[in-house]
Amino acid sequence: MCRFIAYLGEQPVTVASLIDEPKNSLIKQSHGSLESKINIHGDGFGISWYSNRCQPGIFKSIRPAWNDQNLIYLANELSSSCFMAHIRAATHGDVCRNNCHPFHYEKYSFMHNGRIDGFSEIKRELSTLLDDDLFLHISGSTDSEHLFFLIMHFLKAENDLIQAIESAFSWIESRLTAKGHIAHLNIAITDGAQMIATRYSTHNQEPLSLYQSTSMHKDGFIISSEALHDCAKTWTKVPNGHYVYMKEMRGQAIIAPLEI
Amino acid sequence: MCRFIAYLGEQPVTVASLIDEPKNSLIKQSHGSLESKINIHGDGFGISWYSNRCQPGIFKSIRPAWNDQNLIYLANELSSSCFMAHIRAATHGDVCRNNCHPFHYEKYSFMHNGRIDGFSEIKRELSTLLDDDLFLHISGSTDSEHLFFLIMHFLKAENDLIQAIESAFSWIESRLTAKGHIAHLNIAITDGAQMIATRYSTHNQEPLSLYQSTSMHKDGFIISSEALHDCAKTWTKVPNGHYVYMKEMRGQAIIAPLEI
Amino acid sequence: MCRFIAYLGEQPVTVASLIDEPKNSLIKQSHGSLESKINIHGDGFGISWYSNRCQPGIFKSIRPAWNDQNLIYLANELSSSCFMAHIRAATHGDVCRNNCHPFHYEKYSFMHNGRIDGFSEIKRELSTLLDDDLFLHISGSTDSEHLFFLIMHFLKAENDLIQAIESAFSWIESRLTAKGHIAHLNIAITDGAQMIATRYSTHNQEPLSLYQSTSMHKDGFIISSEALHDCAKTWTKVPNGHYVYMKEMRGQAIIAPLEI
Amino acid sequence: MCRFIAYLGEQPVTVASLIDEPKNSLIKQSHGSLESKINIHGDGFGISWYSNRCQPGIFKSIRPAWNDQNLIYLANELSSSCFMAHIRAATHGDVCRNNCHPFHYEKYSFMHNGRIDGFSEIKRELSTLLDDDLFLHISGSTDSEHLFFLIMHFLKAENDLIQAIESAFSWIESRLTAKGHIAHLNIAITDGAQMIATRYSTHNQEPLSLYQSTSMHKDGFIISSEALHDCAKTWTKVPNGHYVYMKEMRGQAIIAPLEI
Repeated sequence: MCRFIAYLGEQPVTVASLIDEPKNSLIKQSHGSLESKINIHGDGFGISWYSNRCQPGIFKSIRPAWNDQNLIYLANELSSSCFMAHIRAATHGDVCRNNCHPFHYEKYSFMHNGRIDGFSEIKRELSTLLDDDLFLHISGSTDSEHLFFLIMHFLKAENDLIQAIESAFSWIESRLTAKGHIAHLNIAITDGAQMIATRYSTHNQEPLSLYQSTSMHKDGFIISSEALHDCAKTWTKVPNGHYVYMKEMRGQAIIAPLEI
Repeated sequence: MCRFIAYLGEQPVTVASLIDEPKNSLIKQSHGSLESKINIHGDGFGISWYSNRCQPGIFKSIRPAWNDQNLIYLANELSSSCFMAHIRAATHGDVCRNNCHPFHYEKYSFMHNGRIDGFSEIKRELSTLLDDDLFLHISGSTDSEHLFFLIMHFLKAENDLIQAIESAFSWIESRLTAKGHIAHLNIAITDGAQMIATRYSTHNQEPLSLYQSTSMHKDGFIISSEALHDCAKTWTKVPNGHYVYMKEMRGQAIIAPLEI
Repeated sequence: MCRFIAYLGEQPVTVASLIDEPKNSLIKQSHGSLESKINIHGDGFGISWYSNRCQPGIFKSIRPAWNDQNLIYLANELSSSCFMAHIRAATHGDVCRNNCHPFHYEKYSFMHNGRIDGFSEIKRELSTLLDDDLFLHISGSTDSEHLFFLIMHFLKAENDLIQAIESAFSWIESRLTAKGHIAHLNIAITDGAQMIATRYSTHNQEPLSLYQSTSMHKDGFIISSEALHDCAKTWTKVPNGHYVYMKEMRGQAIIAPLEI
Repeated sequence: MCRFIAYLGEQPVTVASLIDEPKNSLIKQSHGSLESKINIHGDGFGISWYSNRCQPGIFKSIRPAWNDQNLIYLANELSSSCFMAHIRAATHGDVCRNNCHPFHYEKYSFMHNGRIDGFSEIKRELSTLLDDDLFLHISGSTDSEHLFFLIMHFLKAENDLIQAIESAFSWIESRLTAKGHIAHLNIAITDGAQMIATRYSTHNQEPLSLYQSTSMHKDGFIISSEALHDCAKTWTKVPNGHYVYMKEMRGQAIIAPLEI
């Protein structure tokens, strides 16, 4: 399992404003999560952020977020109107940089909070589905990275990010049904201009926690696995089975049920 | 604060038999300590071990013990009749290899579970006390490394390890008294043939936990910050303010009060 | 490209006797190779060694071999009658632990000096050939790891390690012919009791350097990408297109042409 | 020995424009220096940069600059009107983060290309000279970090950065004279608004290379251990025994002899 946070807004904010400064910041969650069965998320971390370049910047490390001396400096210096940050508690895949989130492909970056049980039983079929370009971009061994490229696969065909997510979740759910496994599929994905986050578990399981806030940073959307502070009205729980669709420069986020 | 374990015996045993195999092994303690206020000890680890060479072997890493893929292999392959292992929760000093325990000097290796409050106020005076040889061996910035070289300082003068420890503790306690600080001074030190461990806090404070076992490995002594499994009669709590003196090839450990 | 060394003998010798002590030791080669177009091999290193356990021990790091403080200690403490060591200059695949050699599967460990040009063009077909068990063991993205599992694939069918190597090389050579690429395939593979090393490049290319010595360690075979010291008569160049077959406890190594 | 580069100008430029893009960029120098006796500088690297905050940002790593996957992203994203970058070939002090340059104290950051021979013979006296505040900021064991804090020591007394550098160099030179050692003292130091770089070796030794360029980035000064490309007229060799004084927002750099 993991924890993550993401920001999309009209104005750039520092990465530190979400991962370091709040009372229950992502860095603090790495040393003591409040809403996860797993207390410790010390198996690496990563950030992706968007500036004027056509691809995201990526900073990943296998160290725990709470003791990486570079992270605080960079979090304070990096300001962006779109970024993601993730802390890992390893399930599938060794602790090495290539298994740290966010994963990226072209303009997209992606992170996952959850796990696909029985992933090894569907990894081959999933790999076979991918075209060569996507297949060759996989550099690690996690369920999460493969899930990302499965979404990219459907995106190539369907050209709609929400549909691609739904198709990928549906593909996984149908494979797992036959094998008796379940998957927890809270994800966040962005291309720097739009962002989608999901709160979903297969087979009617209770999904992991996911919150949305529009009031913490004015004119910006925040998605977070946990509420970053106590002020309850700031944080809205994303409903079970729903996605949140956010767009830069634009008032309301859309919260709607996933069709799977 | 930290956690540690040490073994001295007639027969070599694998490092894994203490740090990986027990129910509450040191590696498991790194991810969830049972008898420490601090649950997580993920700021690096280290091992020192003695073979036929005149100096200990040292393996240290800044990674959490629970996710270092090299550690399990080495713990299974390294067998020794004398070794120490330590997991760190950083207090003084950054997370870098030079601040990981055990520290070593000539044939001695040393580790510390505790902290010297107000260390920065006595660091200069302590450094000045050391001769050039000892001063130049300090490569990090922790209270623990300086405590080790303070013991080495008194050992040069007094030629008795227990007396040197007592002199060092006494030196620290008297400096802290003036400044209103306390220190927790559970340590273990060995030269490969004898080993001493202490359970001591200055100013009549309750010391941190420390256990001794002679029954887990036949013909061998084990010192551990925590009991490694539930069988209560295997583990004897070292009394407050006492040291344990162990010698290779020899029946009884001596447990006696520190004279400070 | 890379550099490697391997030992198989009746008597255990220290890893340091080959990777640290000789004038042109493997660690020195990491900072300045004498017989490679690439002078620097600073993109990680690894060791596999065999003791009484049914699987090899593995120690890998992404640091340059020349500055890893753990390596010298371990090389001096690890003695084995069968071990391998490798230093990497990255070609295919990021510098992460999962891309460091040696790779291992069950009792086998493997390392590669060379590269498969156009590997991305045959990676998919190679992956598809593997059964699920082998496919799921791949955790990195290098040509070398895939070559290892291709050999394991043919070994399952043919039950003869030399034949499996020949089949794997042949499979690769035939795929590359169609695509106009070549491959340099100096490898070493062992199960702890026997060891095979090859000096081979596809399409009649001049292979990379490979030496054998029986006189440096009495009763033991050494395979090395470079001569470890100047004494010319100690080091025999393995002929182009040949393999060396070594067996524990046994006089002569067999040097014979690969049949591809 | 080491290599470094620094920029101070009216306009922010990307770190990548100096450390990655040029033909002989600092990252390329890490894998093959053109003007250093030491070809390889793979023992870590570091960057300091100034934005609107009162202290510099710091990014350091013990990995070789040429294979750190985070570095390229960050170098492309970080733009600053004042930054420094350094690659290390370790002489004094282990390869750990605390021994990587740049070192920093309050608003100052500092890096060193050179070495103080016989540093261990003057380390104690130098440490004793420092006040507690400076003494306690030292976290590693290099000659370079101690040189920096010696300059800070004289700066506190003299309140002039050039004078402080001259006093520190003079202090070192006089101590080394008695002991028969020399020191190579190419340094760069900045507070974000002004920058000084020196090309100096004690005892009339030929100093290491150092170049200045005003034409590569318009309205900005560049200091570099090596010319970054072939165009000779872009790069002016700093004369032996001289310093370069640069100030933000200001036409000419001052090049003048050090008075030592």
